[in-house]
Amino acid sequence: MASTANALSPSLSAANSSISKPKTLHDFYLRFKNPNAISLRSKRVGLPVLRLSGITSPRVSASSAQLMHQSVGEASSRAPTIVEVDLGNRSYPIYIGSGLLDQPELLQRHVHGKRVLVVTNNTVGPLYLDKVVDALTRGNPNVSVESVILPDGEKYKNMETLMKVFDKAIELRLDRRCTFVALGGGVIGDMCGFAAAAFLRGVNFIQIPTTVMAQVDSSVGGKTGINHTLGKNLIGAFYQPQCVLIDTDTLNTLPDRELASGLAEVIKYGLIRDAKFFEWQEKNMPKLMARDPSAMAYAIKRSCENKAEVVSLDEKEGGLRATLNLGHTFGHAIETGFGYGQWLHGEAVAAGTVMAVDMSYRLGWIDDSIVKRIHNILQQAKLPTTPPETMTVEMFKSVMAVDKKVADGLLRLILLKGPLGNCVFSGDYDGKALDDTLHAFCKS
Amino acid sequence: MASTANALSPSLSAANSSISKPKTLHDFYLRFKNPNAISLRSKRVGLPVLRLSGITSPRVSASSAQLMHQSVGEASSRAPTIVEVDLGNRSYPIYIGSGLLDQPELLQRHVHGKRVLVVTNNTVGPLYLDKVVDALTRGNPNVSVESVILPDGEKYKNMETLMKVFDKAIELRLDRRCTFVALGGGVIGDMCGFAAAAFLRGVNFIQIPTTVMAQVDSSVGGKTGINHTLGKNLIGAFYQPQCVLIDTDTLNTLPDRELASGLAEVIKYGLIRDAKFFEWQEKNMPKLMARDPSAMAYAIKRSCENKAEVVSLDEKEGGLRATLNLGHTFGHAIETGFGYGQWLHGEAVAAGTVMAVDMSYRLGWIDDSIVKRIHNILQQAKLPTTPPETMTVEMFKSVMAVDKKVADGLLRLILLKGPLGNCVFSGDYDGKALDDTLHAFCKS
Repeated sequence: MASTANALSPSLSAANSSISKPKTLHDFYLRFKNPNAISLRSKRVGLPVLRLSGITSPRVSASSAQLMHQSVGEASSRAPTIVEVDLGNRSYPIYIGSGLLDQPELLQRHVHGKRVLVVTNNTVGPLYLDKVVDALTRGNPNVSVESVILPDGEKYKNMETLMKVFDKAIELRLDRRCTFVALGGGVIGDMCGFAAAAFLRGVNFIQIPTTVMAQVDSSVGGKTGINHTLGKNLIGAFYQPQCVLIDTDTLNTLPDRELASGLAEVIKYGLIRDAKFFEWQEKNMPKLMARDPSAMAYAIKRSCENKAEVVSLDEKEGGLRATLNLGHTFGHAIETGFGYGQWLHGEAVAAGTVMAVDMSYRLGWIDDSIVKRIHNILQQAKLPTTPPETMTVEMFKSVMAVDKKVADGLLRLILLKGPLGNCVFSGDYDGKALDDTLHAFCKS
Repeated sequence: MASTANALSPSLSAANSSISKPKTLHDFYLRFKNPNAISLRSKRVGLPVLRLSGITSPRVSASSAQLMHQSVGEASSRAPTIVEVDLGNRSYPIYIGSGLLDQPELLQRHVHGKRVLVVTNNTVGPLYLDKVVDALTRGNPNVSVESVILPDGEKYKNMETLMKVFDKAIELRLDRRCTFVALGGGVIGDMCGFAAAAFLRGVNFIQIPTTVMAQVDSSVGGKTGINHTLGKNLIGAFYQPQCVLIDTDTLNTLPDRELASGLAEVIKYGLIRDAKFFEWQEKNMPKLMARDPSAMAYAIKRSCENKAEVVSLDEKEGGLRATLNLGHTFGHAIETGFGYGQWLHGEAVAAGTVMAVDMSYRLGWIDDSIVKRIHNILQQAKLPTTPPETMTVEMFKSVMAVDKKVADGLLRLILLKGPLGNCVFSGDYDGKALDDTLHAFCKS
């Protein structure tokens, strides 16, 4: 299943120098101990959207040939990479590539009925909503598209905001034959997906993720939901989309900090199950940080392949799928304890991964070279490697006690064990190691 | 699949005279045109709970023999009737019988994990919560049971009340291995089921319906959800329970008005697919109204069999399952337009059924003898046969426009067509008939 980056067209790399980065940033200080970690929070309005042309992405599926598209007026044809999520009659494709929002037939084939509700936020909406509406309606006058624009941020991933989606759908009198489209990052995908799962007990839905985090992780696999004040993602559904459309051009407007946040999940796939991918990342992290499209496309594809494989084997998280949560139990505690929206999800996961790795080392399950390599790659990605200083042992314990992976009172964790690329999901560990890790990372 | 009532033990009928009816009633005037329709709204606290003993219910499944239970101190063994809902790996049994809450092993075999949350309301809780806790824990000290008591009534079937269930579950730090138990009528079952579907993206759940309505309809088939101010059941999930446990003794404390409400659904099964059952009801309605246990047990069993068969064939309401909604589109309009909780669900369905039947007759799809028989049986059941006088044509149209059975703008209805026991689910009808029906039943 492993592929290599040199399967990518060299023209992707050549296009790198022209990638735009966001300029208008609303910074705030992050309590990272890593002095390189610059906190970025952007309004991202009005930035130019560059399109790469003359690019043919690699294909991982024979079926992608059918998707070759000659767009009149576009520089060339571009076929998406397709990763299939194999779930029987709920299987669906992930399309990955540049310029996919300029290929209306990709989206339109997955729209059921005549009415579409796009759920987006006040950051992504101004950038891409018009483009998505065009993709949904071009040459397809029977379809009408409405939208609901939510406030941007993890702190709005709650029932109150979710109700705005239901209110809108019901006011519009949408029926069971409608389609919900999630346009945005992980928060939008999770909320729109849960809304689609629950509206009229389930309507069609499509994911258009616009952040690395959503493209490599949250848009794939059907986990949807909202937070409760006492914990993350405690209310939700397993609900699979009709397709995931990843237009890598949308990353052109992504703030650096969100880019890095998504890379935390890319790194995770290497650690838990794909040592070759981790080694590739060690060599290519500077390219990823510089948004080299070729490297980025490969990282997204390989991440989606890993996730699709895990989800296909264990959709409802009987066991294997839980391994995708490396660092997440500690990370969720940081997000909940520190307040949603202070740290990005991937930032919390990065610090959480370091804690899980520290604990694995204390248990004698991995050697210290792995610990060092993980520190190094996270620092290269400008991700935090310690939790916020305000986090206490008690805050960790209290949030971790309501983690979804607790079973009959026992907290199961994903820990590394053995050579790089191997992990376990287990409650069978010495509790002292957990205590020692918490005390090592918290001042009180 | 048809069975007959005489399979029941005669001792069930003999026990009839000792059935208690509620005495403490908080009446309010119902705008029925039927002068016999007495409105009952009861607190039902402290009424004696009679138990019938010496009764053996009929069996529809060979497996029920395994369930024979010799309870020490009880008068005799009682095996439940079992109706299987066949949904592949989500199949589950419906246990029907007297004294089933005195047979702890029935419930306990379906509890997963060590922690149970019983969701009930302030009417049913005082009557049966202790009994259910006992059934869950007797001889089973490892299980701990907590409860959340919601206000009683359809008007509380909303997101605000649902959040109380999530709050409680999260405060209690329940994990994925817990079990939710719905103890109450349809509102409790729908809310508890949706909470179970969404809590941690899905936990086990058990239905213990205590009203005729819930026993013959809402507890079976996995439809869960809440209302929105603009319409009924617009937010929810298809989520199947582990089992449905119908202890017919719980009907002893049911107010007459709620009994009748449930019979509206019993009558429905006859109309849409089971003419023999309808004929049986025509003969036995006085017995049902008098709560003859033998007749009631048969009506529940036959209703569950009909529902289980339909659900097994069409779980997600692709078409056939929609026929269970005879009278419900008009009925939902009454409930929504008139205000939740003013009329009971079955009362609204009864009036809605008369309207659907009127429309079927106007279309020339049924003859007038059917119309008359339906009027007669509903009046025997002391159910309303016209909507509330305050309902207008516009109120009907406005609510019906957001009905879940609207597809691409077309309102599909369940209408009778042909001999008794036959119906269609269709949007292919003359709109004038709908208009004429609405105008015939509304003053403006």
